[in-house]
Amino acid sequence: MIVVMGLPGAGKTTVLQGAMAGASGWKILNYGDLMFEIAKGEGLVSDRDEMRKLPVKQQKRVQDEVGDKLAGMKGRIILDTHCSVHTPTGYMPGLPFDQLRKLDIDYLVFVSAPAKDIVGRRKRDATRKRDSISIEEIESDSRVNISYLCAYSALSGATASIIMNADGKLEEAVGKLREIIKKVEEA
Amino acid sequence: MIVVMGLPGAGKTTVLQGAMAGASGWKILNYGDLMFEIAKGEGLVSDRDEMRKLPVKQQKRVQDEVGDKLAGMKGRIILDTHCSVHTPTGYMPGLPFDQLRKLDIDYLVFVSAPAKDIVGRRKRDATRKRDSISIEEIESDSRVNISYLCAYSALSGATASIIMNADGKLEEAVGKLREIIKKVEEA
Amino acid sequence: MIVVMGLPGAGKTTVLQGAMAGASGWKILNYGDLMFEIAKGEGLVSDRDEMRKLPVKQQKRVQDEVGDKLAGMKGRIILDTHCSVHTPTGYMPGLPFDQLRKLDIDYLVFVSAPAKDIVGRRKRDATRKRDSISIEEIESDSRVNISYLCAYSALSGATASIIMNADGKLEEAVGKLREIIKKVEEA
Repeated sequence: MIVVMGLPGAGKTTVLQGAMAGASGWKILNYGDLMFEIAKGEGLVSDRDEMRKLPVKQQKRVQDEVGDKLAGMKGRIILDTHCSVHTPTGYMPGLPFDQLRKLDIDYLVFVSAPAKDIVGRRKRDATRKRDSISIEEIESDSRVNISYLCAYSALSGATASIIMNADGKLEEAVGKLREIIKKVEEA
Repeated sequence: MIVVMGLPGAGKTTVLQGAMAGASGWKILNYGDLMFEIAKGEGLVSDRDEMRKLPVKQQKRVQDEVGDKLAGMKGRIILDTHCSVHTPTGYMPGLPFDQLRKLDIDYLVFVSAPAKDIVGRRKRDATRKRDSISIEEIESDSRVNISYLCAYSALSGATASIIMNADGKLEEAVGKLREIIKKVEEA
Repeated sequence: MIVVMGLPGAGKTTVLQGAMAGASGWKILNYGDLMFEIAKGEGLVSDRDEMRKLPVKQQKRVQDEVGDKLAGMKGRIILDTHCSVHTPTGYMPGLPFDQLRKLDIDYLVFVSAPAKDIVGRRKRDATRKRDSISIEEIESDSRVNISYLCAYSALSGATASIIMNADGKLEEAVGKLREIIKKVEEA
């Protein structure tokens, strides 16, 4: 399994789609979609962006259900998720130890971008209800997420990759993710 | 349980006292006090600031006793402690895995402040035997402590919060901690 | 056990040899040597620098064998290793949880140096096949490694030390490591 994470606006999904063009035999699962399906089914939310406002205890229970689902899956999986979720009161770990140890992860990939590029992308992205944010906050978020990334790597033994997806450098970022996919296919 | 941590001089105790005014049903426990009580009772130290000079093995044993005590407690607890203890030879983790897994933590709060504010506060605080320190060392300590914070969060699943308590912004910091307390009360 | 880690070019081995002059009763083991012995014995590599190009799965299997060997050893051991190994596709943790929990570690020491000093040392070191690297990359590597260091410390309970080995300050760095060795001898 490859876990692909990134700050909102880093371009994680775009990089992932680019790398998948040409690859075959991989199943891409979006952690947020899996959580949303469960939470919507239980009547907790009606809109995807409401997920972040859910009480922490409920978010954790839904996370656990997703974790159990993933642990039972076979084959080549790419899990599209967040390193941490920045809720109004703090950072909720995206892959806490209890879940991490259930999964067999080869690579933990963190897609990042220069803070100024992320600010610009978030401003232009009016379709998703994303909180506006300053460059300082993005730099702080980025440092925090890299600390989580290293903790996940130390816990799981998976290799940690940081892929920079700067404006105009999408092909380079896609190429790096492709290299990782190839590595796992060859293993 | 909410764990409140911070660098010496970040104003952790002041922020905590401010947030507690009005709150009820919470028991505040100071990890250092709990350790000091045990170490003093065993004749290892006579003064609180001597604790940091204790041999590492003895500090760990005392830590373990405090951890067991905390694990057995019921109700709403705020644990006032250090993220890591900066001893002359290195950073001793305040909440190593063996203790962390015994506790049921909702929030890990790290109270921080701009490095220059911390330097000023430490200089003015002549009553406690605090080592003098440069801005660079505080910035390095701060980064190291945030890495510990994220590791603790990844290990425990608890949400990690960083509250900035800049000079003149105490009320803002207090308000953020109050929000966290309210979140836990509502959960 | 003391684990001594460092970026290539930080001068880890030099600091270690300096600190060992005068110390007695310690066995120094180089993790890379132990890995190379095993991998060479199995015909996987013929040259030490080829180790980093080994498929990740094979590197992990060899790591596990080294970990089991170390776990069975008695006496005062200094383990000379990397905090993480920067492979072409990402950072492989040097001491993942599965190995860490088998070992009884007192100190985790990370030997570092100003990025510009490391760049200079790598350029002059033509005998080892080291990748050339920019100051930005070294600063990023350094931050990542300190995050791993803190995660290892949180996981194991060992004290984490960062020793700066700037150009012309070798004796200072050696002195700090000696202090740690003395601490462990006295414990």
